[in-house]
Amino acid sequence: MQRAAPQTFDRVLSSMCTEPHPVAREAAERFLATNPGDPATYADIARLEARVVTELGRLAGLDVPPQPAPPEGTSEPDDSQTVDRALTETDLLGGSEGLRDAGAEPHGYVTSGGTEANIQAVRSARERCAVEEANVVVPESAHFSFTKAADLLDVELRSVPTDADHRADLEGVAAAVDEKTVLVVGIAGSTEYGRVDPIPELAAIAHDEGAYCHVDAAWGGFLLPFTDYAWNFAHAGIDSLTIDPHKCGRAAIPAGGLLFRDPEGMDALAVDTPYLESTSQASLTGTRSGAGVASAAAAIEHLWPDGYRREHERADRLAAWFADELRDRDYDVPEVELPIVVADVAPATFDALRDRGWRLSRTGSGFARVVLMPHVTQSVLQPFLADLDDVR
Amino acid sequence: MQRAAPQTFDRVLSSMCTEPHPVAREAAERFLATNPGDPATYADIARLEARVVTELGRLAGLDVPPQPAPPEGTSEPDDSQTVDRALTETDLLGGSEGLRDAGAEPHGYVTSGGTEANIQAVRSARERCAVEEANVVVPESAHFSFTKAADLLDVELRSVPTDADHRADLEGVAAAVDEKTVLVVGIAGSTEYGRVDPIPELAAIAHDEGAYCHVDAAWGGFLLPFTDYAWNFAHAGIDSLTIDPHKCGRAAIPAGGLLFRDPEGMDALAVDTPYLESTSQASLTGTRSGAGVASAAAAIEHLWPDGYRREHERADRLAAWFADELRDRDYDVPEVELPIVVADVAPATFDALRDRGWRLSRTGSGFARVVLMPHVTQSVLQPFLADLDDVR
Repeated sequence: MQRAAPQTFDRVLSSMCTEPHPVAREAAERFLATNPGDPATYADIARLEARVVTELGRLAGLDVPPQPAPPEGTSEPDDSQTVDRALTETDLLGGSEGLRDAGAEPHGYVTSGGTEANIQAVRSARERCAVEEANVVVPESAHFSFTKAADLLDVELRSVPTDADHRADLEGVAAAVDEKTVLVVGIAGSTEYGRVDPIPELAAIAHDEGAYCHVDAAWGGFLLPFTDYAWNFAHAGIDSLTIDPHKCGRAAIPAGGLLFRDPEGMDALAVDTPYLESTSQASLTGTRSGAGVASAAAAIEHLWPDGYRREHERADRLAAWFADELRDRDYDVPEVELPIVVADVAPATFDALRDRGWRLSRTGSGFARVVLMPHVTQSVLQPFLADLDDVR
Repeated sequence: MQRAAPQTFDRVLSSMCTEPHPVAREAAERFLATNPGDPATYADIARLEARVVTELGRLAGLDVPPQPAPPEGTSEPDDSQTVDRALTETDLLGGSEGLRDAGAEPHGYVTSGGTEANIQAVRSARERCAVEEANVVVPESAHFSFTKAADLLDVELRSVPTDADHRADLEGVAAAVDEKTVLVVGIAGSTEYGRVDPIPELAAIAHDEGAYCHVDAAWGGFLLPFTDYAWNFAHAGIDSLTIDPHKCGRAAIPAGGLLFRDPEGMDALAVDTPYLESTSQASLTGTRSGAGVASAAAAIEHLWPDGYRREHERADRLAAWFADELRDRDYDVPEVELPIVVADVAPATFDALRDRGWRLSRTGSGFARVVLMPHVTQSVLQPFLADLDDVR
């Protein structure tokens, strides 16, 4: 243990986490010994959590009334609105007091990560719909946390094949939904291909059948405000959303985020808490990490929106360059939307790269996958390409 | 945020967490940016986790064959055996390599805390028994995480009143168990009164009906090795156990522990993990805290067994002194077993103490409750008693 040290991030191309931002690390270390799960004992971190939830809500459009669902087949977002939101929020987190106190009561909490957030979204929908033999409809691009949720919560998981471009297929989803459906899930930044599903249309399909709609923006949530995708509470009548500060938000692990449009979403999760001075608890876990919460607060305060925008632009440019480099080597590289690049690297080449220490992973269909997180720079990818040229 | 700082532990009497040991804090900070949930990317922390699980298993008797269940009515443990185990393990974690590599494959993992561990124990039993309308039998002293588990997993929770001394009532438990029971739970160090249930007898009741037996030693697990209670895998035929490094183990949050006697316990929790190079995942969460894992490894290496034994002796003496001080003031103070002291402080007095900043909590029956964690010393309790004398 004395000598044990984690590997550096020099060769980590497969992770959706990254080195926390220095301000996030500092806050995590300062609040290491606090527990937002016991707010009557650890009041300071509980207040910080409320602020984080409020800021995540603003970032995800919870302070803007939902747009009416668009007519079927028109999934184009309203460019001007999304970009303006980002620009007008420049000074939201500045000021001498740092993060502002929550205005309205926030509906959500800082989870242990995207998996807990997704499980809780399914659980909340199950509780609120209260039908026998409930089912949840997800695109097959959904993260495996939905498999976990279905297993745990004893609901049927209906996984619908995606379209040719790896996005939710609206006809397929509509056909899978029925009166037992409690939740329809859309992905805003899918794990394997970084795709954004047609969220407004998925919400409309869900609501037509009396189901809830959840968006998994665990990874994409801190990139999407700088794009013109329709993904959040302001763009569509969605009911809940996962957005993880410990992924592209540059907070320290563990800091996931779950948001609900209505207080009933959280209420459905609450259990009584005898022996704690607070009276109920909605989180899946009990004791929780103050380090994660404090680091999320610090990172958002420091980086929203300009720091996150710069990182989005950097990753976007780098992904385009990297994809071109791979295409120049005759690999099949699907179009890049959010900064994940996949390529049909042969298994023997893949294994040889792993043997050289590259932390690389594969999609379900066997494509090599590189996630352009903040620690992945051109000076990381150039030696990778050199090794690729060497081993293939 | 710049000025935000957590409160100190000077007046925290209600928490089952504490300041991490300095070696645990250092390890947490070093491994802050690692994720044991993705072992093919973060191999170093994954290896450390395997070692932690092995050491927790040794601490909880997983390396010793189970004792035969004692005849009914004899819950006295074998003193010589438990004390010897602690003594002979003095040098287990020393040596130049620090924590030893795992010998046998460990069956368990480092959870986000006791709640996740308890949920997963219920889930594993539900999966392995696969009966319709499953139920779980717990003493009413069980932590509210079992209510959460039952709600989440859609199993019936049968909560059985405890005996006059706040321990599981064996007749009541036996009467509650039936062919639909998948799990019987015993508490080894209850949240409110610090009581240890008659674990061997509970295991026998469970197994007679074909159910599993789980022990919740989330808080007690690092104290009990220095007592003569029968609580662990070596003392009884239990199937799973919760033991949290981030409570009395002095690790940083989040570091809980779940152990199974058999690999099937873990197998029942596994889901496939496309896109990760590892092929399945048993944890409830996905991304997990390397800080928690590393800090648990460091704390156990540094403190097991002598450091933990000294802390147990200190807390034990302090609890006896504190209970006497309260009794001298005519409070009703039930017998103290593990270092939690409860007293029938009147509501107005309780509120006045909270107003003076004391983080104090109440049992379900309204007794004030003080947990003698490492940060709670005589120099903390003397001003508390002075304030108590002042306000009552």
